[in-house]
Amino acid sequence: MPTVAAPSARIQQQAADRLAALATPPGALGRLGDLAVWVASCQGQVPPRPLDKVRLVIFAGDHGVAEHGVSAFPASITGAMVRTFLAGKAGVNALAQAHGVAVRVLDIGVAEGFSDLDDESHAALTAYKIRAGSGAIHLEDALTAEETEAALAAGASVAREEIAVGAQLLISGDMGIGNTTPAAAMVAAALGLPAAEVVGRGTGVTEDVLQRKAAIVDAALARAGARTDDPVQTLAALGSADLAATTGYLLTAARHGVPVLLDGLMSVACALTADRIEPGAAAWYAAGHRSTEPAQSLALDKLGMQPLLDLGLRLGEGSGAVAAVPVVRSAVALLRDVALLAELGN
Amino acid sequence: MPTVAAPSARIQQQAADRLAALATPPGALGRLGDLAVWVASCQGQVPPRPLDKVRLVIFAGDHGVAEHGVSAFPASITGAMVRTFLAGKAGVNALAQAHGVAVRVLDIGVAEGFSDLDDESHAALTAYKIRAGSGAIHLEDALTAEETEAALAAGASVAREEIAVGAQLLISGDMGIGNTTPAAAMVAAALGLPAAEVVGRGTGVTEDVLQRKAAIVDAALARAGARTDDPVQTLAALGSADLAATTGYLLTAARHGVPVLLDGLMSVACALTADRIEPGAAAWYAAGHRSTEPAQSLALDKLGMQPLLDLGLRLGEGSGAVAAVPVVRSAVALLRDVALLAELGN
Repeated sequence: MPTVAAPSARIQQQAADRLAALATPPGALGRLGDLAVWVASCQGQVPPRPLDKVRLVIFAGDHGVAEHGVSAFPASITGAMVRTFLAGKAGVNALAQAHGVAVRVLDIGVAEGFSDLDDESHAALTAYKIRAGSGAIHLEDALTAEETEAALAAGASVAREEIAVGAQLLISGDMGIGNTTPAAAMVAAALGLPAAEVVGRGTGVTEDVLQRKAAIVDAALARAGARTDDPVQTLAALGSADLAATTGYLLTAARHGVPVLLDGLMSVACALTADRIEPGAAAWYAAGHRSTEPAQSLALDKLGMQPLLDLGLRLGEGSGAVAAVPVVRSAVALLRDVALLAELGN
Repeated sequence: MPTVAAPSARIQQQAADRLAALATPPGALGRLGDLAVWVASCQGQVPPRPLDKVRLVIFAGDHGVAEHGVSAFPASITGAMVRTFLAGKAGVNALAQAHGVAVRVLDIGVAEGFSDLDDESHAALTAYKIRAGSGAIHLEDALTAEETEAALAAGASVAREEIAVGAQLLISGDMGIGNTTPAAAMVAAALGLPAAEVVGRGTGVTEDVLQRKAAIVDAALARAGARTDDPVQTLAALGSADLAATTGYLLTAARHGVPVLLDGLMSVACALTADRIEPGAAAWYAAGHRSTEPAQSLALDKLGMQPLLDLGLRLGEGSGAVAAVPVVRSAVALLRDVALLAELGN
């Protein structure tokens, strides 16, 4: 298996030199300048290429904890939302269409079987299905060791497929009622924090539910014990099929040198896990949007990342990252298309 | 002259009702939900129309204070940058091309004459020229009363022209070495603040220059005296031809019910002035990008606005607003294209 190389330091320097040579005051491009240098270093090319092929994969799955009162919504919404993605009518579809981002949805671990779909749609949706729902992490492991490896491999295959069709920037999206609970547990495990510091209100739960969520995360952390020292065992004990597949997808993007724009808590929890599995993976990632979930900010701090947007979105689906795609395109356009001071002949 | 009506409260309610009926959790669209409701109320239409025709006008002008050590750059850069805009090679051109925004540049008060340009380009650039450079505001009025009225009328004509060719969202950009000094003075006058609270480092001045800038603003405020109680007299005493034209442009956009995405300090100082001239004008404006200039944040606080982006840009030119255009488009796409819960038949 390939390991993660760093983005090219030589190209990074060339990009920084070009940034400094633009006909703009020093530092005037702010974070867009830094972002453009990062894209160029990931691409190995100065100036960077335009990001025409941006691709989002939504990893859907159900979570045993959803049956234990951690969400404002019933678990059946997961499957309903998968159908809405397929129909192109969800929030992230609207954003993706506005910004020219391709959307693919995969059932990695949804409880239901989608037997009503036509054969072709069903095959595409479930090609990488690992199991029907993942374990309730406060009571049992989310996945077996075999399922965890299979889910990581599934995500890796998906990333390779996306790269093979030309993806220049990848995004992971999530769908799964209750998924902020295992994702928060993964962050707590990685950072050694108690549940009270990581849990948040998800799509909008009450104070009672928040307390229950914290208790479930603490029980899950206690149950997992020292296994949380290992990131893959953490996925098995505290994660889910969809979160393990997302981790494999992000890790493989880094291994292949394709940059990733991270979304909210699920995406960032998996990025943190990928960077635990293979330190340095996170050098290929940038943060798209600040989540209202505290665990996402804690994980981003650990990764040394600051999101590009902070618009209060708490929709999941990859929506925050898709909304941030034009910011990355702004950065690329500036480093590509602004005149060099030398060209202006001043 | 028409006065400013408020965006339709009835349409605003219809848009808020549609937002609440979308197949997304309540509040999950965050600020994009509020932004979409605002666009719909400005357009008088639910769902809102896509913002295909977004137009930026850059108002260029020189400032007498630039000869008194308030900038890191010589005043000759104003004209050089105007040529760079015309060549399509400046920062804002790159952003505007990336996001499908039309760019127009006007010499409202540039010191030089652009006699090297061909006749057609020269005529288009200088069609609304008021004077060659505006007064050094700590020593003299920026403009005469007649020039102030002419500049306001010029901006109004420009706005009408842009609206006539179909602008659905307008942006004002600025170019003028030294222009953060008069703009900060305008904000200080409007808010009753001393110079020390409003001046900032512009495109990157040293502590010494910052002190000089504050002294110039205080001297200008003292010289203007009670005239700062009147917004138009404030423009004459403390502003400039380009800032007065920008104010006229923003005011006319509001009078015609066309929404505006504000940029940095110059744009926001003029929006604040427009709202002083005609209270309620600011209901037609949204803030695109947080400037590093303190006066911009102070003026936005007064107007009750929070910028969509905070990327550390300090380029001027309208660049922060142009970078924020895709955020507004995201908002519109969500309120237009996401399924209603009732449609999903759940």
